[in-house]
Amino acid sequence: MSKRVTLLTDFGTADGYVAAMKGAITQIAPNVVIDDASHDIPPGDTRAAAIALRRYWRLYPRGTVHVVVIDPGVGSARKALVVQADERILIGPDNGVFTLVLNEAESWTAYSAERSEFFRSPLSNTFHGRDVFAPLAAHLASGRAAAEVGPGVDAPVRLDFPAPTRDGERVTGEIVYVDHFGNLVSNIPATMITTSMRVRVGTFHLIPLSHAYSEGAVGSAIALINSDDVLEIGVRDGNAAHHFRIGRGARVELIPTQ
Amino acid sequence: MSKRVTLLTDFGTADGYVAAMKGAITQIAPNVVIDDASHDIPPGDTRAAAIALRRYWRLYPRGTVHVVVIDPGVGSARKALVVQADERILIGPDNGVFTLVLNEAESWTAYSAERSEFFRSPLSNTFHGRDVFAPLAAHLASGRAAAEVGPGVDAPVRLDFPAPTRDGERVTGEIVYVDHFGNLVSNIPATMITTSMRVRVGTFHLIPLSHAYSEGAVGSAIALINSDDVLEIGVRDGNAAHHFRIGRGARVELIPTQ
Amino acid sequence: MSKRVTLLTDFGTADGYVAAMKGAITQIAPNVVIDDASHDIPPGDTRAAAIALRRYWRLYPRGTVHVVVIDPGVGSARKALVVQADERILIGPDNGVFTLVLNEAESWTAYSAERSEFFRSPLSNTFHGRDVFAPLAAHLASGRAAAEVGPGVDAPVRLDFPAPTRDGERVTGEIVYVDHFGNLVSNIPATMITTSMRVRVGTFHLIPLSHAYSEGAVGSAIALINSDDVLEIGVRDGNAAHHFRIGRGARVELIPTQ
Repeated sequence: MSKRVTLLTDFGTADGYVAAMKGAITQIAPNVVIDDASHDIPPGDTRAAAIALRRYWRLYPRGTVHVVVIDPGVGSARKALVVQADERILIGPDNGVFTLVLNEAESWTAYSAERSEFFRSPLSNTFHGRDVFAPLAAHLASGRAAAEVGPGVDAPVRLDFPAPTRDGERVTGEIVYVDHFGNLVSNIPATMITTSMRVRVGTFHLIPLSHAYSEGAVGSAIALINSDDVLEIGVRDGNAAHHFRIGRGARVELIPTQ
Repeated sequence: MSKRVTLLTDFGTADGYVAAMKGAITQIAPNVVIDDASHDIPPGDTRAAAIALRRYWRLYPRGTVHVVVIDPGVGSARKALVVQADERILIGPDNGVFTLVLNEAESWTAYSAERSEFFRSPLSNTFHGRDVFAPLAAHLASGRAAAEVGPGVDAPVRLDFPAPTRDGERVTGEIVYVDHFGNLVSNIPATMITTSMRVRVGTFHLIPLSHAYSEGAVGSAIALINSDDVLEIGVRDGNAAHHFRIGRGARVELIPTQ
Repeated sequence: MSKRVTLLTDFGTADGYVAAMKGAITQIAPNVVIDDASHDIPPGDTRAAAIALRRYWRLYPRGTVHVVVIDPGVGSARKALVVQADERILIGPDNGVFTLVLNEAESWTAYSAERSEFFRSPLSNTFHGRDVFAPLAAHLASGRAAAEVGPGVDAPVRLDFPAPTRDGERVTGEIVYVDHFGNLVSNIPATMITTSMRVRVGTFHLIPLSHAYSEGAVGSAIALINSDDVLEIGVRDGNAAHHFRIGRGARVELIPTQ
């Protein structure tokens, strides 16, 4: 069985930087299979990367190596992290991209990659995707242990994701992500929602809860528990972000039906 | 030999939905190789997906599993389809994305995937790419038979692709697709075309037939039989859709040379 | 060990042309692993393709087959090239996309692919990615020798990349590439640079040399030796191309510090 490595970056593909990472991996570990997760994370958007990564890291089989390179601090003193979580390996800069993995893993240990035998030589200051994270992925996919890369890290950097609040029967949260379809993903988990609630987003809209986008008429607003088990607002066959003219950070309220 | 699974979606990659599908597939079938066909189909555009799929489904070797998730009706009563056609397997929603496969296959049988052992559990109402189509692909790539997934389907949904018409020596068709280069792909097959015809597109243009884009001067309009064996109109080193300001649905005529 | 084939095109993925290439490869060589390098090269931009290819072709292990299809001259008399360089195989049109490979390889031999047994039959005039380059890649990844495809080529087409000039202590070059982040990549190699120089780009800006983007304040201009060992100008956490409103072809000067 070939080991699998996934790649998540904000590089786009046109420059050849992603292909350079793939070359650097297969140079060391020629038999790995590399799956592109995405290279279209908005430049520097560690928050978007954390949310995308949450959607797949534990669906992959045990032993998978997930590489995440959203790295605006490349060349600074930020650590290069190797995280072992629920029998998957995650590799990337210590800048918060693993926040949701750490929050959700049953158990994890993290290491600061410092031993230069795991890096490319010479080592650039500007492209650790190729020179640090790709070789690390190759070595770990080839059977080296995470603990070999360097000392343990007790408290990796975590991004501060906003938490929803409850006030009586009212729940207030916010839009934390807008997806490719313009669907508005909130931070309100299914456990805080009852079917007798309506959703207010922006200032005017009171949307009842549905089970599926196909329940609404074309062009109508829909609110439902999405496949990540959080509240999501969309427009049937349309783009909710455009429709409501709102985006990340917008307030969402769940209000009891009168 | 590893089984191969291809993915065609309208998801984009940035949200992690595609990676979630890849994870769900490899969780069940860790040795499959996954090829991205595309994740850039315009949202909900089943017609564009049908045309893209036509270009590759039978070029892949026998036994390949092609997954197509353009699924605006997710969560509705639309069937999840498994089609066995010319020894390839196709998996996706029953909404017409397989129209051209069914039209062109020498033989096919279709099944409605209903047996929950082939699905992820729990099953969401919003993300059948991950919960239905990916697990189906993994099980079928692992040797389960298409007929096991559920009852046969005699008449899968078919999209109504417009047919060209002939009136005397004149042939009338339409643009059914605009590609990445702005080339205008018509529905007029090579079999309806003779070299003594000229092409009228928009209202003013009479273009003689060429054999290759490189025959024209830079910036000039070219009409030729394309690699799908249909009439295509382009501009040498340019973008015909911008040049003529027309797109899908525009009328195309083939007129005998005087 | 599976042979690896990489693909670099200007096709985008949405039309299914890339998937058709993958199908045409795996039809002949079902066990190859195909890595997407990129399909987002700007249409017809052989120069951008040459620069992207330079970033990865020799990082991949010996024996890798790199396919490059940026081919505005498809259907003309331009040759189909197979280049063997430093134990990698490169396949693509003879239009300059291999310029930097030829410039940097320790040794190379090139062949004009002419023997039709290596092509798909029938052979279209518009899609040599599918009909010529993909089958060539499959056959060469399956162990056929480059020299079998046709006669040798002594002088493949080369693009004319501008060279930097030195006048006393002053070095003048130009921006040859703008990357996904808006970083401005010049043609001035590290060997022409000393740390006592400042960089002038546009008309007003005198930027000292840094070691990493993280050295600058957010929004400030940075000049450094990049991971390709050439001078690059960027903006910390920003887009230098937008900031300076310049692009490919802009003049860059290195001026001694007073």
